[in-house]
Amino acid sequence: MSETLSIETICRQAKAAAGLLAHVPTLQKNAALQKIADQLWSERDEILAANAADVSAARAAGISEAMLDRLTLNESRLQNIITDLRHVTELADPVGDLLEEKVLPNGLVLRKQRVPMGVLAVIYEARPNVTVDVAGLALKSGNCVILRGGSETIRSNRALCAAIQRGLQGTQIPAAAIQLISDTDRALVLELLQMDKYVDMVIPRGGAGLHTFCRENSRIPVITGGMGICHLFVDESADQERSIEVIRNAKIQRPSVCNALDTVLVHQSIAAEFLPRLVERLAADRVTFRAEPAALALLNGKNSAVVQPAGPEDFDTEWLSLVLGLKVVPGVEEAVQHIAQHSTAHSDGILTEATENAAYFVEQVDSAAVYVNASTRFTDGAQMGLGAEIAVSTQRLHARGPMGLNELTTYKWIIRGSYSVRP
Amino acid sequence: MSETLSIETICRQAKAAAGLLAHVPTLQKNAALQKIADQLWSERDEILAANAADVSAARAAGISEAMLDRLTLNESRLQNIITDLRHVTELADPVGDLLEEKVLPNGLVLRKQRVPMGVLAVIYEARPNVTVDVAGLALKSGNCVILRGGSETIRSNRALCAAIQRGLQGTQIPAAAIQLISDTDRALVLELLQMDKYVDMVIPRGGAGLHTFCRENSRIPVITGGMGICHLFVDESADQERSIEVIRNAKIQRPSVCNALDTVLVHQSIAAEFLPRLVERLAADRVTFRAEPAALALLNGKNSAVVQPAGPEDFDTEWLSLVLGLKVVPGVEEAVQHIAQHSTAHSDGILTEATENAAYFVEQVDSAAVYVNASTRFTDGAQMGLGAEIAVSTQRLHARGPMGLNELTTYKWIIRGSYSVRP
Repeated sequence: MSETLSIETICRQAKAAAGLLAHVPTLQKNAALQKIADQLWSERDEILAANAADVSAARAAGISEAMLDRLTLNESRLQNIITDLRHVTELADPVGDLLEEKVLPNGLVLRKQRVPMGVLAVIYEARPNVTVDVAGLALKSGNCVILRGGSETIRSNRALCAAIQRGLQGTQIPAAAIQLISDTDRALVLELLQMDKYVDMVIPRGGAGLHTFCRENSRIPVITGGMGICHLFVDESADQERSIEVIRNAKIQRPSVCNALDTVLVHQSIAAEFLPRLVERLAADRVTFRAEPAALALLNGKNSAVVQPAGPEDFDTEWLSLVLGLKVVPGVEEAVQHIAQHSTAHSDGILTEATENAAYFVEQVDSAAVYVNASTRFTDGAQMGLGAEIAVSTQRLHARGPMGLNELTTYKWIIRGSYSVRP
Repeated sequence: MSETLSIETICRQAKAAAGLLAHVPTLQKNAALQKIADQLWSERDEILAANAADVSAARAAGISEAMLDRLTLNESRLQNIITDLRHVTELADPVGDLLEEKVLPNGLVLRKQRVPMGVLAVIYEARPNVTVDVAGLALKSGNCVILRGGSETIRSNRALCAAIQRGLQGTQIPAAAIQLISDTDRALVLELLQMDKYVDMVIPRGGAGLHTFCRENSRIPVITGGMGICHLFVDESADQERSIEVIRNAKIQRPSVCNALDTVLVHQSIAAEFLPRLVERLAADRVTFRAEPAALALLNGKNSAVVQPAGPEDFDTEWLSLVLGLKVVPGVEEAVQHIAQHSTAHSDGILTEATENAAYFVEQVDSAAVYVNASTRFTDGAQMGLGAEIAVSTQRLHARGPMGLNELTTYKWIIRGSYSVRP
């Protein structure tokens, strides 16, 4: 349906729709979400057929099994996506929240009140679930969204978006609230990034290349994030056995995501005991290691099959796989220094029994999420009680860490006087 | 001193200094602010001499009297600037504020805590007071700042920054916390805007051209703002006499600033009575008017000396002078529509006795500040109780309206567990 529309038309329609959607009450937004969920389910055959075509085209093009898996929908996955969408109706609607209220000495009454951001543009890669997740969170927070998925998943996205727009029929929400750029020409992304007249926020969800491209080319504010070189520092006083379990969780529970662990820093006084135990435990899970010289020396000979010397860029690599960097440090200060140099400021933690070291670490490490005695895997909107997440920000403006519904809003000041003038 | 440094060196130094400044306690930041204030006063002769040289160069170059006035310092103006700086010591330090704290069902303790933004870059034009204002607010909020003033004021800025840096000697705060780009080559601004590795936020303070340039060329998030096409709508039920005084205040109290009024919209049922009264009252203050046809017809003949027909772009012009647009509208809905089309979303208001119309206006108008029965001139950090302001944002991300110390911060999540793992 939107195939023939220009980027500017799509954006202008979105902005017009945003003017309406901002004022739709919660009950009606929730009803629309339920209608979309119903429609997605009733169109499951078309959606799964479109997805199957995407999958076979991708397979023919020789993409990796991991990518294929992310791309693939089946009835049960679609059902989960729909369940997640219905769950969004249960989240609190942030729009209208009163953030601050005060009466000034001159009698003016000030209210600072949440309003939707306006129009979001989300640029993402292979996963078709993002299409539905983002549509749901945008709609609930009163925002229109322009979706630009990867070309591998274009048939799935067209089918999903068509169902979403049909779901909106008969509701107060115009179909233009959720639009897909259904032409996969890459030049259109560049065009989209110039539409600052209509679009308020760009959220790239993908690799470093996509984020850099957006930051370099966008006239619209960009949320950068989703890249995590994450660290855990094992202090002298840490419970070693429990620390190994935390590291194991952070590394292997889901190695392909941004909050998975990349580097373990170990206090030198326990390294000789700790490192071999760690390597033994994690090698059983098929983890391999990149160790700097001091760590390597402590492991030497014993685990040569799984431990390699760390290369010059290994501590600046987000592994996204079962690889773990190992380094011995003299103490918490050097751990903090290493993190300042190598972290992407996503998620970093200390494992310690020493309150003072924990306090120092928490004060000095300037990452979106700083942990004491916990796995880095908790940096996640659902885990942190935000209900859901649209992205994880590793930049500093507007929002840091998981972004939920609140982070898709801004505010306005409402000021009431009695024909008040400034002296 | 910093004249020979490259932009990258300045930025790298700032980032290193930010790592220290973020942890300096409030008392010591306040002591440093007082030391800077003392130093500025003790170097007043050098500062005023440098300023005099700027002024005479500017006069020779033929800049306007208004610009000359903004540029000029004298002992009393410098004293006011120093008093404002000392006042910053009395403002609450936002760093370390606990924004949220919760215990998750799994026992993790989450704290969301304010931290400084990091490194700010402020790009501004003729006013030397901005140099000191920005330095003070940046330092108090734990941020380093890179200042880039206009070439007209370069000698004043060099003298002010040298005094500021000398004021920091013997404090815990490195001189690199406040740096001036003292080469006025315009290419350096472009270079600065690429330094996203070191700089966290760019704040342009100047005309539309500067803002557009920054938005188009920056890899660093930019705070856009400071441009206000501001409206007041006079509803049918408004107290006309008091409305005229509010309009007069909004227009003439300080016409050259962004929250000054640009357009008056008048309900058609009162326009025949109201418009001539308004024009008569404001003409006495040397205001001139641009009226669309219906307004013009109601004023016809009576005030031809001060009322002109509105040209096609007059309602999209920020006047910054004693010019006021006039338009008759059928009612509040059309007023809202006009504002949606022409406002820069800075400050817009309604004058009314009708609660329902006020509520409609407040809900529908999506500006940083929306007024009921008050002058638009209150959109100001000091007036709104934020203590001070570094800029007025008219964009939606991060902050809207006046930005005080809080708006120069971000936050981090601190998460404490007991060797907690994600299931």
